[in-house]
Amino acid sequence: MQRVLLLGSTGSIGTSTLDVIGRLADRFEVVALTAGRNVDLLCDQVARFRPRCVCVHEDAAEEARARLKGDGVKVLAGMDGLMQLVVDPDMDVVVNGLVAGIGVRPTLAAIDAGKDVAIANKEVLVVAGELVTARAQEKGVRLLPIDSELTPLWMARQKTPDDHIARVLLPASGGPFFDWSAERMALVTTQEALNHPTWQMGPKITIDSATLMNKGFEVIEAHWFLNLPVSLIDVVVHRQSIVHCLMEYIDGGVTAYMSSPDMRLPIQQALTYPEMLPSPIDPLDLPEVGQLDFYAPDADRFPCLSLCYAAVNEGGTAPAVLNAANEVGVASFLEDRIRFTDIARVVSGALEDHCNGHDASLEALLDADRWARKRALEIVEGLEN
Amino acid sequence: MQRVLLLGSTGSIGTSTLDVIGRLADRFEVVALTAGRNVDLLCDQVARFRPRCVCVHEDAAEEARARLKGDGVKVLAGMDGLMQLVVDPDMDVVVNGLVAGIGVRPTLAAIDAGKDVAIANKEVLVVAGELVTARAQEKGVRLLPIDSELTPLWMARQKTPDDHIARVLLPASGGPFFDWSAERMALVTTQEALNHPTWQMGPKITIDSATLMNKGFEVIEAHWFLNLPVSLIDVVVHRQSIVHCLMEYIDGGVTAYMSSPDMRLPIQQALTYPEMLPSPIDPLDLPEVGQLDFYAPDADRFPCLSLCYAAVNEGGTAPAVLNAANEVGVASFLEDRIRFTDIARVVSGALEDHCNGHDASLEALLDADRWARKRALEIVEGLEN
Repeated sequence: MQRVLLLGSTGSIGTSTLDVIGRLADRFEVVALTAGRNVDLLCDQVARFRPRCVCVHEDAAEEARARLKGDGVKVLAGMDGLMQLVVDPDMDVVVNGLVAGIGVRPTLAAIDAGKDVAIANKEVLVVAGELVTARAQEKGVRLLPIDSELTPLWMARQKTPDDHIARVLLPASGGPFFDWSAERMALVTTQEALNHPTWQMGPKITIDSATLMNKGFEVIEAHWFLNLPVSLIDVVVHRQSIVHCLMEYIDGGVTAYMSSPDMRLPIQQALTYPEMLPSPIDPLDLPEVGQLDFYAPDADRFPCLSLCYAAVNEGGTAPAVLNAANEVGVASFLEDRIRFTDIARVVSGALEDHCNGHDASLEALLDADRWARKRALEIVEGLEN
Repeated sequence: MQRVLLLGSTGSIGTSTLDVIGRLADRFEVVALTAGRNVDLLCDQVARFRPRCVCVHEDAAEEARARLKGDGVKVLAGMDGLMQLVVDPDMDVVVNGLVAGIGVRPTLAAIDAGKDVAIANKEVLVVAGELVTARAQEKGVRLLPIDSELTPLWMARQKTPDDHIARVLLPASGGPFFDWSAERMALVTTQEALNHPTWQMGPKITIDSATLMNKGFEVIEAHWFLNLPVSLIDVVVHRQSIVHCLMEYIDGGVTAYMSSPDMRLPIQQALTYPEMLPSPIDPLDLPEVGQLDFYAPDADRFPCLSLCYAAVNEGGTAPAVLNAANEVGVASFLEDRIRFTDIARVVSGALEDHCNGHDASLEALLDADRWARKRALEIVEGLEN
């Protein structure tokens, strides 16, 4: 029985993870859940999975304590609560379904406490890939990606020798603006940007998907998860989101990994690897899908992709600046303060102005994160005028 | 250094095999070549690869002996020559690039002599799958498919446990008549049938590809090569011939194997497995390919596919009858004696009239083959009137 700590249980990754665990109750026990402010859903999850402990945002702690009183559930709050849970010796695996940069510190703490970490939280390896992967290797723990693209790629990588791999391809849906002109893209509304063609996800990741920043983040993640040079990782636009990753071999052969789009598959795979178990997802019916399209990505209209390559090639604190400036850019777009196409301007401006000390320590990364948020906000304010 | 006996060196598989071996001269030595009547090409191959021995059709033996005189090459002839070569102790691997049922006896003899056999000759396992695979297991030799679909599938099968496999899918190009009406298909000319959309192949296999008999043969071959129930092997029409096989897993994931269409890839893979080496084939450029289509095959317009499932499910001598009647049907169509759609009628007629003793010995298979050819010719004559 694997004892699971689920970080971010009320988000889309969290609810899918509980769906998977609910079907595999003979293998997994939910020991603790953490959420933000969605106390309603958290209480439902507590009633079903009976964790020993939960952790919520400080603002929601009082409500959670009141509603869970008498349930025998300990209620912690905030980052202190998170940090207490991830080092708890009564947990075997941490599922990190947090959103944005908040996930780096708990991930490092979990690794230091010797726990395997299944990571859905893209920003962890984007911001701190060098630090986190080095620490995981040092502590001998496994970092498992939870991602429709990276999980199957990571599994294929485990059985593929380095010298067989010619290239890895990450398909991008292309987002809602795949075939829009540059002029039209400058006028995109938040409504339009939140309308992702395939996946139902949170607003931050949906916007990142529309700018292709999300795919660039995956390139960086793939670099760290797969231990492959970023020069061997490319992106191809694939509208149907059926092909999730491709591996090209030195003999000219290529394997494509496909499935119906359903996050429960990579979650189950990450939690049960190297075993394979039946899953509840719909079998893929290729004649029903009919057609799979592939296009080269347009670097001019989607500059966020190149910014990701530039940041990971620069290394040091550049990826932390990339991520922080992007968070500010996306939030500012969602608040209607800047245009969709300004998100890339905010990020590239922060990267250009950034003074990179080429230090990948947590302190340096957090400093760079703070600096980049401040600088990005200044750029946003400049764009507003 | 692997010592290779290449059966059928002047055919399309033979010439591609020599191209592969020519590039891997530090690994492979061509010890003997066999051909039919194409003495010109055989002499060129002898000059380049310096085999110790060749074998040609009886009709061409005199010419070959005269032209190769003084080259130090021993010239054998006919089936006796073939049978002598396949048991020669100075050869490690036999590449069977023969066409049609002629390949069964030399394959069995090679297995009995303890040699690994790389089989491009579809009919070997179609006609004698039960006998050949049982004999190979008994003698502890490897049977390696040489086939754009079956070689990658066989390689994937080596590292996939039985209970992970939900289904195997063989893509069929659909041939030139994929979207023709049943009425129009009845009027197909030999010229039209020989015009395969993707692969340049010999006339027999091109017609088999147009009727989908070729794909049905592959279903039977896959059953034997992969040791999988035929009920787990399905066909999907895929026009571009870029996806060569698919494996569906019990968790809903699917892997597709793709490459530029080039027979040198599976030949190299079969000869060098489990190693992987660079190959001369064009890398696959998916954005250039653009689009991959998938359709369910139309069982009504392509009855040969169902005939293959029926024959392998019946077992015994039924697959030998299927193959022999098909050879007669295809030859009769190429001689303009019957219509394209009559090929399936010839085969189904022979299968219906056949009295199956459920004996898979070589003698029973050869008897069934002879009977089926005779019966098929009678059906052809009936259709001519």
